Parts: sequence; structure tokens; C-alpha cells
Amino acid sequence: MIKVGIIGATGYAGAEIVRLLQMHPQAEVVWYGSKSYIDQKYASIYQNLFKIVDADCLGEDMDKLSDEVDVIFTATPQGLCASLVNEDILNKVKIIDLSADFRLKDVSVYEKWYKIEHKAPKYIDEAVYGLCEINRDKIKGARIVANPGCYTTCSILTAYPLVKEGLIDPDTLIIDALSGVSGAGRGAKVANLYCEVNESAKPYGVANHRHTPEIEEQLGYAAGKEILLNFTPHLAPMNRGILATEYASLNKIDGKLPTPQQIRDVYNKYYGKEKFIRILDDGVYPETRWVETSNYVDIGFKIDERTGRIIMMGALDNLVKGAAGQAVQNMNILFGLEESMGLDMVPCFP
Amino acid sequence: MIKVGIIGATGYAGAEIVRLLQMHPQAEVVWYGSKSYIDQKYASIYQNLFKIVDADCLGEDMDKLSDEVDVIFTATPQGLCASLVNEDILNKVKIIDLSADFRLKDVSVYEKWYKIEHKAPKYIDEAVYGLCEINRDKIKGARIVANPGCYTTCSILTAYPLVKEGLIDPDTLIIDALSGVSGAGRGAKVANLYCEVNESAKPYGVANHRHTPEIEEQLGYAAGKEILLNFTPHLAPMNRGILATEYASLNKIDGKLPTPQQIRDVYNKYYGKEKFIRILDDGVYPETRWVETSNYVDIGFKIDERTGRIIMMGALDNLVKGAAGQAVQNMNILFGLEESMGLDMVPCFP
Amino acid sequence: MIKVGIIGATGYAGAEIVRLLQMHPQAEVVWYGSKSYIDQKYASIYQNLFKIVDADCLGEDMDKLSDEVDVIFTATPQGLCASLVNEDILNKVKIIDLSADFRLKDVSVYEKWYKIEHKAPKYIDEAVYGLCEINRDKIKGARIVANPGCYTTCSILTAYPLVKEGLIDPDTLIIDALSGVSGAGRGAKVANLYCEVNESAKPYGVANHRHTPEIEEQLGYAAGKEILLNFTPHLAPMNRGILATEYASLNKIDGKLPTPQQIRDVYNKYYGKEKFIRILDDGVYPETRWVETSNYVDIGFKIDERTGRIIMMGALDNLVKGAAGQAVQNMNILFGLEESMGLDMVPCFP
Amino acid sequence: MIKVGIIGATGYAGAEIVRLLQMHPQAEVVWYGSKSYIDQKYASIYQNLFKIVDADCLGEDMDKLSDEVDVIFTATPQGLCASLVNEDILNKVKIIDLSADFRLKDVSVYEKWYKIEHKAPKYIDEAVYGLCEINRDKIKGARIVANPGCYTTCSILTAYPLVKEGLIDPDTLIIDALSGVSGAGRGAKVANLYCEVNESAKPYGVANHRHTPEIEEQLGYAAGKEILLNFTPHLAPMNRGILATEYASLNKIDGKLPTPQQIRDVYNKYYGKEKFIRILDDGVYPETRWVETSNYVDIGFKIDERTGRIIMMGALDNLVKGAAGQAVQNMNILFGLEESMGLDMVPCFP
Repeated sequence: MIKVGIIGATGYAGAEIVRLLQMHPQAEVVWYGSKSYIDQKYASIYQNLFKIVDADCLGEDMDKLSDEVDVIFTATPQGLCASLVNEDILNKVKIIDLSADFRLKDVSVYEKWYKIEHKAPKYIDEAVYGLCEINRDKIKGARIVANPGCYTTCSILTAYPLVKEGLIDPDTLIIDALSGVSGAGRGAKVANLYCEVNESAKPYGVANHRHTPEIEEQLGYAAGKEILLNFTPHLAPMNRGILATEYASLNKIDGKLPTPQQIRDVYNKYYGKEKFIRILDDGVYPETRWVETSNYVDIGFKIDERTGRIIMMGALDNLVKGAAGQAVQNMNILFGLEESMGLDMVPCFP
Repeated sequence: MIKVGIIGATGYAGAEIVRLLQMHPQAEVVWYGSKSYIDQKYASIYQNLFKIVDADCLGEDMDKLSDEVDVIFTATPQGLCASLVNEDILNKVKIIDLSADFRLKDVSVYEKWYKIEHKAPKYIDEAVYGLCEINRDKIKGARIVANPGCYTTCSILTAYPLVKEGLIDPDTLIIDALSGVSGAGRGAKVANLYCEVNESAKPYGVANHRHTPEIEEQLGYAAGKEILLNFTPHLAPMNRGILATEYASLNKIDGKLPTPQQIRDVYNKYYGKEKFIRILDDGVYPETRWVETSNYVDIGFKIDERTGRIIMMGALDNLVKGAAGQAVQNMNILFGLEESMGLDMVPCFP
Repeated sequence: MIKVGIIGATGYAGAEIVRLLQMHPQAEVVWYGSKSYIDQKYASIYQNLFKIVDADCLGEDMDKLSDEVDVIFTATPQGLCASLVNEDILNKVKIIDLSADFRLKDVSVYEKWYKIEHKAPKYIDEAVYGLCEINRDKIKGARIVANPGCYTTCSILTAYPLVKEGLIDPDTLIIDALSGVSGAGRGAKVANLYCEVNESAKPYGVANHRHTPEIEEQLGYAAGKEILLNFTPHLAPMNRGILATEYASLNKIDGKLPTPQQIRDVYNKYYGKEKFIRILDDGVYPETRWVETSNYVDIGFKIDERTGRIIMMGALDNLVKGAAGQAVQNMNILFGLEESMGLDMVPCFP
Repeated sequence: MIKVGIIGATGYAGAEIVRLLQMHPQAEVVWYGSKSYIDQKYASIYQNLFKIVDADCLGEDMDKLSDEVDVIFTATPQGLCASLVNEDILNKVKIIDLSADFRLKDVSVYEKWYKIEHKAPKYIDEAVYGLCEINRDKIKGARIVANPGCYTTCSILTAYPLVKEGLIDPDTLIIDALSGVSGAGRGAKVANLYCEVNESAKPYGVANHRHTPEIEEQLGYAAGKEILLNFTPHLAPMNRGILATEYASLNKIDGKLPTPQQIRDVYNKYYGKEKFIRILDDGVYPETRWVETSNYVDIGFKIDERTGRIIMMGALDNLVKGAAGQAVQNMNILFGLEESMGLDMVPCFP
């Protein structure tokens, strides 16, 4: 039984890890870390766990924690994980960090976009970007897994095969995405009150959202060169879900646009055997309802012959594949378990 | 492996049975009955099951179906199940009926409230009312289980112990309940369009909702006499959830109102060992979010010393404990499996 | 032109007064009071008023304010209005208080339910309870109008004629109500975050909600005696709307239950000429969507012959008739304007 | 008093015309046309109009109708308006058509995208595209006004000044838009049921939505050449609102990207005096909540120096400026009234 500690267990992502691990056959949470609620019953904060979890919330004593668990999930604001790790801790436990601290390889990019100093730059290089379907071999031996964000997981997976195979011009990539509100976290802010968000949609972080360099870096690896793209997130009135609609100019093959079958073949080459990625049938496009509460990513596409562009669309549940589910998937890889263990939830609809 | 057939597999309740049984270790759906979608891929109707269920929808050939399965769930409008059952079929398979056909013991009450003729009155007596926590012993040997409705399950379980123990006057019972919209089914009606329901709440079926006699009958058994009560359902803009708020005058014990602890003791006497019923702590009241996607019923209460009444409150997920989950629980009982098998979903929040 | 000052102009109720008065032909807001946003553009807080309101937010300098305006609306937490009023101010301006400070005639009831000391008990007697349809004559000459709350306006108006005429037994009254989330105000609380409220319904303030004594007092005047009743509010996931479902035992007339027509006649006697109260046709019940953004109260009823009870139902928009609209209606009465001036909004649907 | 007839008065757009005209000082609806509800009280379909509108629904007798009214609004499916107009009718009344019948100047484009034969092609040329802010001079003398759709109004107005002034390359235009559900109409379809739409977002009509050629035609006029662009609509779970996020490559001015002020100057040149178009301050982006129930279009923009693109964003209420409000605005222009008459609703929030 893998012993799990969670720092930030009372945020939405942390709570989703808690929930998923209750149903995991080979892992158990033994440390519910939550600075704000120390000594309170965890189930008094998340009443859905009443009679399921009896534990109290604990603090962030990393030394003690690292003695008691096999893996630590940090579901905390940027900067905290980097401030806590050190050689001693990394020799004792695996770290799966759900914040951005170890996602970007260039520390100056991190510091520019996040506007904080990085407290542990020496571990950036060894940290592995935990996009399971692309990096699973590297993840196996990692000490620190940088779990990707919700927008990035969806944006990257949707475009990756076509970028990798050179079917699209990555410099024409425009990613227009929307998210449910749980992605904004559980902080008490006026902007996230029910009445502020309900019955409204809005763009935000236009041309400067922090997930932009993360997407550019990862798709840049696929393209074999640095790329710049546009990414615009929007908030939509729903609890969960990420939907990414991505536009790019198609490169011609022998002077002609690729056919839908050629595109499909490329998606299948990369994802054909992936349990959690579903390439939808022609004419079917992703909808967030079809992946909700599951670890699936649904991907569809449409070629526009008129403009020579392809529209790629991806959907996932931001708290599952976009956060806690992928974190558990990374844990499974790290500990040599079946990758889908504890993650075989059928999407819940309605 | 129990072989399952579902008639009405493309309604919301039927689809929830399908979903739950994908995660059940000892049952598999082999017949996805859906008159409206015959020969279409089930997963083309419920895209959440894409790459999970590959089967096509089939019709309602009960003879053929009863040869191929061990149990049939009928998740269909009133009247259909009664029109299909006969001795031959009942000798071959178990029937778990999610409609009202076999819930009421008095056929004239059924025909008065549902305004249709009952096609199989001779099986009414032997059918067992499938409220698991109360009738599990009788359910074990049943051929027909009448699976209770969502409002009734919540309304009955919330009041049952206090009625049974004579702590409240059942003739003063007033049940004010609300439901999410999935309870209205998947029929294409203007009244259930998004824009008609969203941002609104309404009462309906006032003083004549069909669940009324069902609640009266079952609580009447507990009271040991016929009772009449008021039940008013409301529609609220959410996908899932039943919340029942119930009022009754408390009977005095030795000239005094019962204490909260006395009430709690009675709840614990009946439900203390029940896995799926959670009696909440003092001052905590049920909220539908805390039971969503799970088989739990949460129950809380408050004594109003000023008026001498008790307010009892219950919440459940109408598609799970209020329909498909309880149906699976009944299946587990019928086949001698652990009652909670396949039903250990932690409530999903947010 | 009536000059208006608003204290608490950036709460939801205050903002609704601002919005309504932009469309009022004989009143203009000249003081946008908001302690939290002093010197900020009002339209930067409520962007819907961009290019409509150019003013900055101001503080709560009551002396200065009372020199500059004809009427002050206080849309603030309990206690503030009572702490600000004095003889000097009351000689200069009218006060329409949207808090509870002057609603209850018995100061000990106020202090018991609100758990604060009342700072201006000497004005309680002269303050007029601003339920326009019932108290309009008294309102005309008032210096302080205690604007009723959203739940109370709906609860009282729905039952008032039947209590007044003795058709129901007021001691059997049970009021089960639900509210949209804007009633909870704009404070930054976790409990009111989108993801906490969306897709859920919950009771709260069970047997101790502060609107209870207000309803009891007003209906007590109608009954001619003190009454005790049960009032249970619920939160539903929608921006606006109050729906009250009220139960009471009918008194017999000549040994028989009153007929629907007798009930209707009584409603018409009191409300037949009221512009803002609509008694719905038989079989039609109130739905919050039909009154949204308007000053209407819709009322329907149903007699249950089986139990001898009547179910009365009322709906209104909590920010309009339940707060700002009624406040403007009170202003119109105070200043001798047509009572419906600036309030002829047709309910907006969908 | 202008006498108004509405064909399709019980659809959402028709009902919004009805609602707006109740508050219009110089127009009154005298014909509530609704094939599906003939002889039923209009207010029994739209209960929000109870005690406000007493009329019954009537049919589509154009000859009779054109004798009784000054202007006819057709809020009907494509094809109907074209099948009804003729010289006799056009000599008697003005037609404001909310369908697509007279929006596209090239009948073959219409027939290709809408897949129906055009029944009155001879009137296409004289019909005026009713985008008030751009075509108001031509609208004045029109007999047929082709009222633009919701997506198109938002998409065109947001980009128009920059296209017209050559600041962006129109062939790089990508329009990613989302709509509330009322845009889908009031037809009883499973796809628009509450539970199908709630808690989900989806793209649709990808690369073939019918509003595409309409946007291309109008922006083509501004560009002075034919253009092709990508337009992708999405459905979001809210009643009202259109949000368009538009991307285009900026043309350089003297070798440099335009500055924000240069962009703003161009917007002001075209819209500076427009009552219903609000150019937001720097760093403020449109949100549908800020325009809801009003006739405003809010526009914001952001230059991305990294990619050389501009992101333009627009928001409006699809039923008001995107349908009924603009239709009334067109009526005002046609009849020489103040253009904003009856349209001075302050956006309603929350």
C-alpha cells in the first residue's frame, strides 16, 4: 500500500486527489495537509467524505511528512513546492507537484511569467514534465514530477501529433479555450462568487496567461524549434471542464491539403493505444459533459478547405485529467502500477 | 457474472444503470434495450461511453431477452413493465422495475393516481417494495422488485424511524421537496428546455403528485395505520439531487418534547449500521452537493421548541440512490452479493 | 427631481437601486456611498453601468449626505442604519432602510435574533414597516421606512389575506421557501463561491432564521394575536428569485372547507387592484422566472381536500420587490409620486 | 402610435420583441402571430406577461396583417419571410426580418449554406442589411430590413473598424465565439434540454456554420475585397449572451505594430458617438453579464507583441442587440424616431 501525503488537501485539486484515492486499491492518504484547517476534521470541510474519511487536517511539516509517506502531492500555490524540496526530502519520497514550480525548464521564463523568485532552480532540470502519454518513460525514474495544468494538458495533447509530424505550421497556432470555475480554486474572492460567474462568460489573461509559455515549450519540443502562439482562456459558468479549440494552417502534402484520414492516422499513431485519449468519429466534436468526472481527453478535428486551416478540439475534466487524475496516473507510473489503476471512472452524465 | 438486460437504457435512469454496471465487478450489461434507437450504437447516444460500450441498442423482445439474461431492469414509463411480465418470464429472470407499476399494493389507488389500467394486477401482491434498508429480507426472495422513486426514497427514509417509533404525529407530516431536472427524464419537451428551467424554481403536482400515495402507504406501514400527508415537489435548476424538508409535530414523552439525543438515538437504532445512510452531526443539514453521484442518503434534523415541531431533512442523488443505484443495490441483494458491491462511489464535489 | 443618496451602493441590493433609479424619471442618485470602494469609479465596480454612471464612490458622512439629498437608502448590514440616524438627520431627509434595524417593534426580539444591541431604539416606534400594499397609508408620512426583506415580503403577502379573514389557522402555518444566491450578498465567502453553490440545494437557518419573527409579527397583526410558525429557507442555484410554499389548515365555513372561489375572492378583495400582485389562474403556480427583474409578486394556491390544508405559493424577485424595487416603491409613496413610477419593468424571460 | 405585427411571437426572439415593445412609448403590438398557439392567450405561453398582455395568438394571414399594421417583424425559421413577401405587402408595410432570408446578397451563397430555395430573390437587392451602426442611412428608406443574427452582429461590429481602416489582415481573421442557449430557440429538442446543456460546453457547426458567409460578406465590404475566415461557435450553459474572441495579424504602420492608442483611435472614429457601443478601457474585456438584457455591445482589445496579432473581443445580449433590440432599433430608424427609443435598459446584473 502506497502511503500518500497531500499538501493543500482542502483546495479543489487536493480534494479531488483525496476523493480519487479513496477508490484506489493500492494507495491510501495518511496525511491531509491543510494549513488553513489544521486540527479540523477533513470531512467537516468536505462533507461528501463524512463517514468515509475520519482524519484531521495537518500542517506542512515536510520533514515529518517525508518520513511517513512514499509520495507527496503538492496542490498548492506557485512557489511553495520549490521552497520545501531539498536533497534530504527527495531521497526519501517522490514529489508530484501540481503547481507550476517545475514545469518550465528556463527559470527566467518562470520568474518573468510568475513574477516570483524560484527557490529551488537546481531541481528544475531533473524534474520531469508529467504529461503521461508523452513522457511516461521519463516519469518512471523521476524524483519530482511536474504535473501539467488543466489548460496545458488539453491544449498540448490536442495539437501534439500534428505538430510532431509537421502537418501544421506551429507559428499559426491559436488556442481558444474555456474552463469551468473550479479551475479558479477555492479562495474566497468576489470574482468567483456564484452571482458574479453564473450566467456570464468572459476572457481573461488575454495574451499573458501563465499557461502560454508552458504550452509553447512543450509543443516547441514537438516542433523541434521555439514557437510562439496565442492562447486565450475564458471562464464559463460550469463547475468542471476544459474545452480547447485550436486553429492552425495545414502544411500541404504533395501540394495538397492533408485528407481527414491522413490526420486521423497521425492521431492514431500517437494515441491509438492510449486508454485515456479518445479520438472521436468524423463529425463528432468534444463536449465537456462527455468526459466529466473521468480521466479521458476527447479529441476531434475538422479541416476547413476554404481557409486551409484545421480546427482541432479537445475536452477534459480540469480536476481529473487536468489535475488530480493525471497526478494519480503519474503516481501509478512512478510506483510501477498499472497506469490506469483507480482511474477507470466512466464519465458521469448528466 | 450476472447477465443484465435493460429496457429503457437510453433514458437518464437507464443510462445511469449502464454507467454503474460498467464499474460493477460481477455484472455485465448484455442487452441495451431502447425502442427509439434500435440498431444505433449505444455510445452514439451517450458519448460518455465511447470506447467503453460498443453494443448497439436493441428492442423490447421480452421472450428473447429473458432467455439471455439473469435480471431485467425496466426503466420505462408507467404501464410498460406490467404489460410485459408473465409467469413464463418470471420463472426465468428477476425483474427490477423502476416504474411505479408494482409499488402500490392497492390497484385502485394505482389506477386513480396514474390514470391507466394495470395490466398485471395478479403480481402486485408478490412484488416487493425495494427500499433496501427497510425491506431487504423480503427482497432476497422476490421475483419482482418495485424500485422506489427518487422523491419517495428520500421522503420515506428521512421520516421512517420517527414514524415507526411514534415520536411524531404522522397526520401532521408535511413534505416539501425539490428535485434536479434529470428527474423529469430525457423526453423532448419545451418545459424541460434549458432556458425554461435555468434560473427558475417552481412547485408542480401540488396536492396531486403521484409519489404521494406511495409515501403514505409506506409510512402508513410504519405507523400501523393509514395516514394522509402533504407532499409538494419543486423543480430546481440543477442536474441531480433530491432534497426533502419534512415537518411534523413531535409527540411528547413524559410531558416533554424529545431531546435531540433521543431523536438521534432512534435514527441510529434504524440506520446506525447502514452503509448508505449518514445521520449528520448536530447543526449540519443535508445539501445535495455532498451526495452527488453516490448512493448515500444524508439525513439531518432540528427540533423547534417554539412550535413543538421537528424539521427532518434528507438528500440523495435522484439518479443513484433515487433510481439506478438503489436498483443495483436491489440486484446485489437478489443475487446474494455484498449489498454495496459496485456502489462505493465517493460523492463527487464540486 | 428627487436627490437620492445610497449607503451601501456596491452591494447587490444597493446596486439594484442604482440600476432602477437610472430609469426613474423623477429621481437621480447623487451619492454613491461605498466604504470599501471610496474614490473608485462606481462603474469600475459595476461595469454594466459603464458610460451610464460616471460618479465615484463616496463614504458614509451622514451629515454631509443629509444636506445634499432628499432621501437616503441604507443597504447595509444590520446595525449600521440605527447607529447613524438622529433627530437632526431625520429632520432633513427621509430614510429608507433595507436592513432589519427598524422592522421589529420589540427591541428585545431584535436583540435576541440579531445578537446586537440596537443603537436607536427610540425611533423603532415611529418607523413604518414598508410593505407597500398593506401599509401604504402609514408610509406616506414616515420619516423612517423599514423596507421588508425578500423572504418576508413574499411570505407575508402570500398568506396575508387568508390570515386576515380568518380562513386559515395561523398556528399551523409552515413556510418553506427558497432563494437565489444574490440574497446572500456580495461578500467574499467560500460558502457563496460558484462551485459551492452551483448544482446544489440546501436548507439553512433551520428554526432560527432571522426573518421568522418579522413574518410572525406582521401576520400576527393580521391575525389579531401572537402567532408562532415555522419558516425554513433554502438556497437554490440561481441568481435571483424567492419562492415560498406555505401550508396551513383551513378553517371550515359552515362545516365545510372553503371553495377555491371563496379563497380567490378573498385574495381579490385585498389585491384585486394592486398593480404589482398577480393572483394566478386556477392550476397555475408561481415560478420565479415569470417575475424576474420585475416588481411583481405572483401568488397561486391549491386546496387539498384530503388533508384539509391549503397550499399557498408566492414568487418574487428578491432584488426587486424583495429589496430595491420595493424601496423605490416606498420612495414613490413618500414623495407623492405615482407608486409604480420607474417600476414598470416587464419581467425578463428567459 | 406605430402598429406592430409579429410573426413568430412565441419564439424567444419574438417574445423579446413583445417584451421590449411593452415599454416602447410609440409602438404597440396589435398582432401576436404564432401558428402553434392560435387562439391561446399569449400570456398563457409567456406567463411573465400575465396581466400585461391580454391578447390571443393569431395566425400568419399576411394580407390581413399587412392591412392592420405599420410594420411586421418576422421572427421565424429561414424561408418563411421570403415565401410571404410580395409587392402588394411591401407597399403597405415595412418588413423587419429576423431570419436569414435577406441577409446575403448572393442568392447562390444563401441556397448553398441554407440548403433551401429562395422564394423571393428579386427582393434581395433592395433589402438593407440592418446593422444599424453601419447602415443606418440606407435603413431609413428600406422596405425590407434584414436584421442581422446574434453572432454576426457581435463578430462584425468587433472587427469592423480595424478591417475598414486596414489595420489588420482580414484573411488571418479567426473568430471564436460562444452563445447562451436561448440562441438555439424554443423548439422541443433533446439537444437543448436542461440536462444536456447544463454543466457542459461544446463547439458546433465547425467550419460550416451559416453565419460564416454573412460575416465574410459584411467584413468583405469593409475590406474592399472578398475574404475568407474561420468562425467557430460554441454553446455555453447560460440563457443569454454572445461573446466573440477574434484574432488577426496586425498590419504594420511605418514598420511598427500599431500602438494601443492607435487602435483605440480607430474604434473611437467609428463608434465614439454610438450610444450602444462601448469601447472598454485598457485591460478591461467584455463579459456577457455586463450587457445582459440591454442593447449594448461591449468591445475590448489587446495587442500581443510577441505574435504580432491583435485579440479583439465583443459581447452582447443575443436576444436584445443580437435580435429583438436591434430589430426595434431598426424600427425606430425606419419610422424616424429617436434611434434609442424604448431601448434605454440598463444592463441587469446579477
